[in-house]
Amino acid sequence: MKPMGPIPPEFAAQTGALTIAGRSAETWMEGREGPVFVYDPAIVASRVARFRAAFPSIDLHYAIKANPFVPLLAAMAAMVDGFDVASAGELAKVAPLGKPVSFAGPGKRDAELTAAIRAGVTVNLESEGEARRALSISEGLGVRPRLAVRVNPDVELRGSGMKMGGRPSPFGIDAERVPPLVRELIVAGADWRGFHIYAGSQALDPQAIIDTQGATIALAARLADAAGATPPLVNLGGGFGVPYFAGDKPLPVETVGAALERALATRPAILGDSRFAIELGRWLVAESGVYLARVIDRKDSGGETFLILDGGLHHQLAASGNFGTVVRRNYPLAVAHAMGAEPVETVSVVGPLCTPLDRLGDRVALPVAQVGDIVAVFLAGAYGATASPSAFLGHPPAAETLGAPA
Amino acid sequence: MKPMGPIPPEFAAQTGALTIAGRSAETWMEGREGPVFVYDPAIVASRVARFRAAFPSIDLHYAIKANPFVPLLAAMAAMVDGFDVASAGELAKVAPLGKPVSFAGPGKRDAELTAAIRAGVTVNLESEGEARRALSISEGLGVRPRLAVRVNPDVELRGSGMKMGGRPSPFGIDAERVPPLVRELIVAGADWRGFHIYAGSQALDPQAIIDTQGATIALAARLADAAGATPPLVNLGGGFGVPYFAGDKPLPVETVGAALERALATRPAILGDSRFAIELGRWLVAESGVYLARVIDRKDSGGETFLILDGGLHHQLAASGNFGTVVRRNYPLAVAHAMGAEPVETVSVVGPLCTPLDRLGDRVALPVAQVGDIVAVFLAGAYGATASPSAFLGHPPAAETLGAPA
Repeated sequence: MKPMGPIPPEFAAQTGALTIAGRSAETWMEGREGPVFVYDPAIVASRVARFRAAFPSIDLHYAIKANPFVPLLAAMAAMVDGFDVASAGELAKVAPLGKPVSFAGPGKRDAELTAAIRAGVTVNLESEGEARRALSISEGLGVRPRLAVRVNPDVELRGSGMKMGGRPSPFGIDAERVPPLVRELIVAGADWRGFHIYAGSQALDPQAIIDTQGATIALAARLADAAGATPPLVNLGGGFGVPYFAGDKPLPVETVGAALERALATRPAILGDSRFAIELGRWLVAESGVYLARVIDRKDSGGETFLILDGGLHHQLAASGNFGTVVRRNYPLAVAHAMGAEPVETVSVVGPLCTPLDRLGDRVALPVAQVGDIVAVFLAGAYGATASPSAFLGHPPAAETLGAPA
Repeated sequence: MKPMGPIPPEFAAQTGALTIAGRSAETWMEGREGPVFVYDPAIVASRVARFRAAFPSIDLHYAIKANPFVPLLAAMAAMVDGFDVASAGELAKVAPLGKPVSFAGPGKRDAELTAAIRAGVTVNLESEGEARRALSISEGLGVRPRLAVRVNPDVELRGSGMKMGGRPSPFGIDAERVPPLVRELIVAGADWRGFHIYAGSQALDPQAIIDTQGATIALAARLADAAGATPPLVNLGGGFGVPYFAGDKPLPVETVGAALERALATRPAILGDSRFAIELGRWLVAESGVYLARVIDRKDSGGETFLILDGGLHHQLAASGNFGTVVRRNYPLAVAHAMGAEPVETVSVVGPLCTPLDRLGDRVALPVAQVGDIVAVFLAGAYGATASPSAFLGHPPAAETLGAPA
């Protein structure tokens, strides 16, 4: 038997039939031919409320790469201060929502820069070359561009799932080259919006985030001093993790918020008039989503039992351990009609694909599930449907649906 | 500097501008807004010819999961003896081509079994439960079903990238339970088509394949004796690998073919009237495909140089090392206008996605590539476009195109 990660708090205490956003898993699956991702906006709202309480003076941005499902974006428009996008395709999804938007990404095509500048979006510049292209496109359009500088920080986020600072990187501009570029942007007449500094993601250690945020503020002050200009906004990045695996502990965001508010109270003078933002994706939405699939077959082989689902890695690649993880570990799973029931057998839960990679639960302990029963895979709200190879092996895509607001 | 895998032989000796299927990379990219996968049917045909020469008495099946691009399937219909599919979606692609089809996959839905039985496809049964469902559906349709039994072999393919035998498995039925099932199928009036036995994939050691094929024939004979019936067809599986990484050596298929022909010449009497098939995906098509993307930016960070392409893991996940590989290694890459030129710099080649996972070449030695130049990623003919998360981060999908037949 191998352990699973923790079921998110909104579901962990349930007994009997699994309920998501007020409806049972069976109800969510009714009339569907295959698996579905269900997102509960009330869970997102509760994460937002927790953030607001912990970080009263900080703007909250949602990085839609985590989950760009349009009805979810519409629900979140009323909750967050801005959207961060990573392509013109993502920009098109948030443009109708009327919120401030910023655009980061190391390989922005000219057509993407044009769309962003025309839309009045803040472009986070990732290189001097991109800065020149953005200025030239703005001149052609006759538009004053809103440009921020993404900084490749000289600090990394300790213990993060993905480190994005403290090393040579395709993201952002090395710190020592930032001040001259800021001056160049200002001289060129651009509307310089400030800095974007992202040091890593999926961190669960509050002290690591506190240290990184402290170093990021110091870095922003140093760069602002050298440039001789106060950044209107400092995007401090994100990096808040969620517990996916056995032994993971939830991030105490209140501890992080208190430290950040203290750090900002005594911030260097050059940042006195700056606003600060935190950009979150996964932490806001991961726990709101549940992926539901049905057992198609139940079989024994070599003394082990396999549950074969009608959904798998083509819908939820990350849960199979094949996306950004070195060692495969189990996401939390449950048999949807038996929440809270004692596990009575050890099974492997696999998808329908004809490849051994398609395994959602490796020797997990569960209540009995028969053919036709629903299995729930938690933590499916971020990096699920859009981060999976949906065309692989020609099965239908999963449906996505949003619960009604609470 | 880190090594790259070997460029496939049809491209390795080129100098100057990269040519694919008689046209330059620049020509293939003309008028396109983004990356393209180009497949050369002549390379597929040359692999087929090599197989035919090495395995004169064996049927050749193409497992379309490796690359289900419809124009490629149409070209291959004239080259192979049958198609192997893994879903109703794949079945729909090959049904119009008029070739024999077999259908394997551990989680076939009732609707898929119905479509397959109605189309006269051979269903490779993966469990006793699936066998009962298939018989019941056939009865409902009034059709005599063509049913084969997929066997979970008691041997594994040594050195294979993915082992699928010799262990508890979601694939197939444990060998000792196969003979009674075969008898049950025959008694029920099904058209029993034989055995499907697949022990692993992506093997480069000929002796490992020879040993596995020998053990597979012995297993098929033992099961046939126990069932008291000669299988019309024994699908020996595939497992032929291609060299992806530095140090990989091509599989000498002639050695494998000679050994198999010898083994079949002295096969047990019960298999005297059986036909034999080998099912290949990757080996037939991987080397035929090249993924072409343009350099959007070229930047320095911390003393390293990055080429940022307009394509990346959302089109070609496997080349980023995030699909089925534990240790990230470099696929072969080239600068398309400088084939055969000496490498003069070490660069990292990354995609446009705002994630550190999006890396196609990690500190590889290449000729200089400037903004606008084309970079080629080889071995893109299998498990490329359809095995990648194309919606991730909202960039456009890659185009796919087939070169004219030679």
